[in-house]
Amino acid sequence: MAPRPIIIDSDPGTDDAIAIWLALASPELDLLGVTTVAGNVPLALTSKNARKVCELAGRGDVKVFAGCSRPMLRPLVTAESFHGHDGLGHAPLPEPDMPLQPQHAVDWLVDSLMAAGDQGVTLCPIGPLTNIAMAIVKEPGILPRIREIVLMGGGFFAGGNTTPAAEFNIHVDPHAAQVVFTSGVPLTMMPLDVTHKALMTAERIAAVRALETPVAKAAAGMMASYGAHDAEKYARDGGPLHDPCVIAYLLEPAIFSGRDCNVRIETASEATMGMTVVDWWGSTEEPRNCRVIDEIDDDRFFKLLTERLAAL
Amino acid sequence: MAPRPIIIDSDPGTDDAIAIWLALASPELDLLGVTTVAGNVPLALTSKNARKVCELAGRGDVKVFAGCSRPMLRPLVTAESFHGHDGLGHAPLPEPDMPLQPQHAVDWLVDSLMAAGDQGVTLCPIGPLTNIAMAIVKEPGILPRIREIVLMGGGFFAGGNTTPAAEFNIHVDPHAAQVVFTSGVPLTMMPLDVTHKALMTAERIAAVRALETPVAKAAAGMMASYGAHDAEKYARDGGPLHDPCVIAYLLEPAIFSGRDCNVRIETASEATMGMTVVDWWGSTEEPRNCRVIDEIDDDRFFKLLTERLAAL
Amino acid sequence: MAPRPIIIDSDPGTDDAIAIWLALASPELDLLGVTTVAGNVPLALTSKNARKVCELAGRGDVKVFAGCSRPMLRPLVTAESFHGHDGLGHAPLPEPDMPLQPQHAVDWLVDSLMAAGDQGVTLCPIGPLTNIAMAIVKEPGILPRIREIVLMGGGFFAGGNTTPAAEFNIHVDPHAAQVVFTSGVPLTMMPLDVTHKALMTAERIAAVRALETPVAKAAAGMMASYGAHDAEKYARDGGPLHDPCVIAYLLEPAIFSGRDCNVRIETASEATMGMTVVDWWGSTEEPRNCRVIDEIDDDRFFKLLTERLAAL
Amino acid sequence: MAPRPIIIDSDPGTDDAIAIWLALASPELDLLGVTTVAGNVPLALTSKNARKVCELAGRGDVKVFAGCSRPMLRPLVTAESFHGHDGLGHAPLPEPDMPLQPQHAVDWLVDSLMAAGDQGVTLCPIGPLTNIAMAIVKEPGILPRIREIVLMGGGFFAGGNTTPAAEFNIHVDPHAAQVVFTSGVPLTMMPLDVTHKALMTAERIAAVRALETPVAKAAAGMMASYGAHDAEKYARDGGPLHDPCVIAYLLEPAIFSGRDCNVRIETASEATMGMTVVDWWGSTEEPRNCRVIDEIDDDRFFKLLTERLAAL
Repeated sequence: MAPRPIIIDSDPGTDDAIAIWLALASPELDLLGVTTVAGNVPLALTSKNARKVCELAGRGDVKVFAGCSRPMLRPLVTAESFHGHDGLGHAPLPEPDMPLQPQHAVDWLVDSLMAAGDQGVTLCPIGPLTNIAMAIVKEPGILPRIREIVLMGGGFFAGGNTTPAAEFNIHVDPHAAQVVFTSGVPLTMMPLDVTHKALMTAERIAAVRALETPVAKAAAGMMASYGAHDAEKYARDGGPLHDPCVIAYLLEPAIFSGRDCNVRIETASEATMGMTVVDWWGSTEEPRNCRVIDEIDDDRFFKLLTERLAAL
Repeated sequence: MAPRPIIIDSDPGTDDAIAIWLALASPELDLLGVTTVAGNVPLALTSKNARKVCELAGRGDVKVFAGCSRPMLRPLVTAESFHGHDGLGHAPLPEPDMPLQPQHAVDWLVDSLMAAGDQGVTLCPIGPLTNIAMAIVKEPGILPRIREIVLMGGGFFAGGNTTPAAEFNIHVDPHAAQVVFTSGVPLTMMPLDVTHKALMTAERIAAVRALETPVAKAAAGMMASYGAHDAEKYARDGGPLHDPCVIAYLLEPAIFSGRDCNVRIETASEATMGMTVVDWWGSTEEPRNCRVIDEIDDDRFFKLLTERLAAL
Repeated sequence: MAPRPIIIDSDPGTDDAIAIWLALASPELDLLGVTTVAGNVPLALTSKNARKVCELAGRGDVKVFAGCSRPMLRPLVTAESFHGHDGLGHAPLPEPDMPLQPQHAVDWLVDSLMAAGDQGVTLCPIGPLTNIAMAIVKEPGILPRIREIVLMGGGFFAGGNTTPAAEFNIHVDPHAAQVVFTSGVPLTMMPLDVTHKALMTAERIAAVRALETPVAKAAAGMMASYGAHDAEKYARDGGPLHDPCVIAYLLEPAIFSGRDCNVRIETASEATMGMTVVDWWGSTEEPRNCRVIDEIDDDRFFKLLTERLAAL
Repeated sequence: MAPRPIIIDSDPGTDDAIAIWLALASPELDLLGVTTVAGNVPLALTSKNARKVCELAGRGDVKVFAGCSRPMLRPLVTAESFHGHDGLGHAPLPEPDMPLQPQHAVDWLVDSLMAAGDQGVTLCPIGPLTNIAMAIVKEPGILPRIREIVLMGGGFFAGGNTTPAAEFNIHVDPHAAQVVFTSGVPLTMMPLDVTHKALMTAERIAAVRALETPVAKAAAGMMASYGAHDAEKYARDGGPLHDPCVIAYLLEPAIFSGRDCNVRIETASEATMGMTVVDWWGSTEEPRNCRVIDEIDDDRFFKLLTERLAAL
């Protein structure tokens, strides 16, 4: 079977880096390109970090496109306290040699999708949804070319990690999320409910580090740096590993389970701004617009991740 | 020590009935009166049910006052699907002989509180907060006389039981809840997070039924009727027993644990209307206005309930 | 014909004072009582001012009832910059001898309405609508006893006088206004659109002052003090005289004209909080719940006012 | 003096057509291009109509770029009842020969602005602000290159023409308007308050028709067709002529007067969605972000329009 064409839209970001490596390590996936967006850190950094990450994996050929430097409506909020001022957990990755592509990520998303074959392209947003939403508004003709969107974002029984009710990716650009969640495209969401079950324990980090490749050592360092804050906050054995869940779902969907639900994005109230209102129990009549993942076989997930990273 | 003066504000309602019985069975509490409000069923029924409940316990002397028949702003929504059309799970309790007090519940709340001694009065709202909020708006001078408010309502990591984000009591009158939660009164909240850990298993219901008193038999019948729906919905061994947690907390606070948090009531957005936005992780700078309970020693809770009911 | 029973609900307030005098001077009206509310100044002052106003007119027999000291949900905002720190434009009225009635205004409103004859009672709210809304929520049974509500409040083509979109009375307690405007009671509204056409020119003030009675001299003083600010703000020959329009409408409705419209009260957005959204052009399908007055024969209005004040 | 470079962003639309002709007839202006957006009619029609309009004026050389076919967040609402199903008031203009430019309007806006000289480019949006907002979000670097934005939209004392509170252009895409009004770019707004003073009387239409050029005859036909509805609705001698006010302001600003105000765009409440909340009286502390025009010398405006159209 031909590899599945995907685009990763991201704001690296430590867990973004690991998600990109997981994709690069997986022959089932054809990574058409990486688009970057302002989120965990500003756009200039996410665009540089995406290239650092590709080069460390020996993949200076990956096309990286810089996208939007601000959310659609709200002022940008970043998350340096989690990802470090460089966005990569102070991992000393070399400056990239590979160039940034000259085209704007939104335009390239539109062009790539309009040129897609019958099987379409799978979008993997692991940052704020600004680029994806902008592409949809600019050219709604892309919608039938999107095979599906599998995204990391939101939370329901897990609550929020940025405000009491909202997860970071959705909170940064809730209006973009509303565009995506009302687009009619097949949608799968990896919320905090599932990623908080993918804990980076010391043992799991050690298994990655033991691979001893440059990528594995960098990944292990990021996992340790990034996870410490949440491990303490939640009093768990390790912090959650968010973004790679999106790629793992494409590789082995059976690792995950969930439910088709209506999901509304809160944009009307400041107190709950960016909340993903998941109708888990079917208490409304609203249509089911999203597959919401809440369970993960975490041992299998980390086994998959470690095996794949070994190949890079 | 003198018994603690309390007022139960309720919309019986099956679990309301059991909460009232638990209070009547507890010499540590001085039940000054029961006020009724529209909620699970309309006011005429909650006012009759409160009296049925007192009479079955041989306490026709308890003062019952009818309060508000509608929420402050929103149209009334009721919950007959949970509590039966009579509000008591079709329990065949006799029609009450005891009279309804002539005074409006809001006025009696104000009068009782203004006449309270130095220790104040503890309010135990186990329905929508309309009466309490109306009393506060009508006479803010009652605020220093309220020792504390311990209420059943809301939910955060548990989500809602009426809409995806809102629990029934708060959803019915979110504006009243906002008045209470911004009043400055010491506040303890029993949300779904804790009541969903107080499951009415077959064994626990059987233990109550085995007491063989009229109250115990009625309580067991209500528990079975009321719990069935939620037990199936949540695929658990039994449905949650909500309202008696409020009374149990007054009797044995050590059964419960929780955290002081900021809690905001959502009134700005229809999608999340009536949500209790609990800042569990301290992610905002908002002041901590509520003790939020999330843990319960459920065995001890049901043991307490059963022992006390035996005395009625 | 028997005089029409009315209740004035007010927050005196300089133009409130003149409205009360106009009612007291009019044999067509039977002023059952005056209820007071926090608004232009706090409740203690409005309750004292209402009595000062009645006594100056030699009507120490009028029943004055103090009502709510705060809005239903929002913190109280007052308007001393318009009405002076005493609320009466620094008019040196004597301290009142007449007592405040012991009953709460909300309770007396309910009692009076429930006891009303077949013709019902006309309510004349000229301050925030807190008392009226609280009475409706406490006892919805009063609704059929309210013959009509004629209120001063709101604005549409005139904009707001407190925020860009909201008039003072509605802005202070928009939730109370929402209760009133969705109550189904026949409603007539005197918005800024009409009151801004009732200008207190120097000539008109002089005509009142020339009556030389204590009431007339006080009224003229208030008109001069209160109107100066708005006359300058709007660059007009005089400031608008708001509240007496309500009483004049009851006396000579032909002085006014308007249109039946849907009116919604904005409570969802801080930017437009308390706006009266008047569907003047019928651009929505919403039902017409209010007679909205926009035109006044201002000469006839001031002639009526001056003639009536002469009789006090 | 070199002509001022401008871009007209429009949704022709009858009054849009006349605005474009007025610009084409004015040597003081250098029309870099016309961008089209969905609004009065869908994008396919506005893009065709813009070309019809240019060709009728003998200006097949004007660059016309199609932009966004939908608002940023809300579903598209159109206004065929005003502009006819073809968007040009059923004016029988020939099908255009000139091609639509291949580039997306948003991209061309970005490119043109980034390439602009020191004097920058003046943007003249006379439809929903989707294209302008999308360009700002996609490339915030354009902001310093925008000399100013002079737009037709909004209303305050005039109310709305689409909902009770909102004017059509802003109501169609309030989120885009919010992006523009918070962008920091110098902003001048022609709201309904001023355009409702630019009435297309029979005499003024006749003066245009008497020019007897193809453009003049088409313009007169559109004015008659388009204005009839509003003339009847508002019981005036003619309907308002909105969009050409923007161009006239660039040509002879002294025809207009207004005030620097804070303007907020309502996006939080459905009842007032898309309202331009103009702080005309300075009742808030918000910064003044817009020149709001409310007065026009209408005789001079129509004289200017007629003289210029004569030259086409």
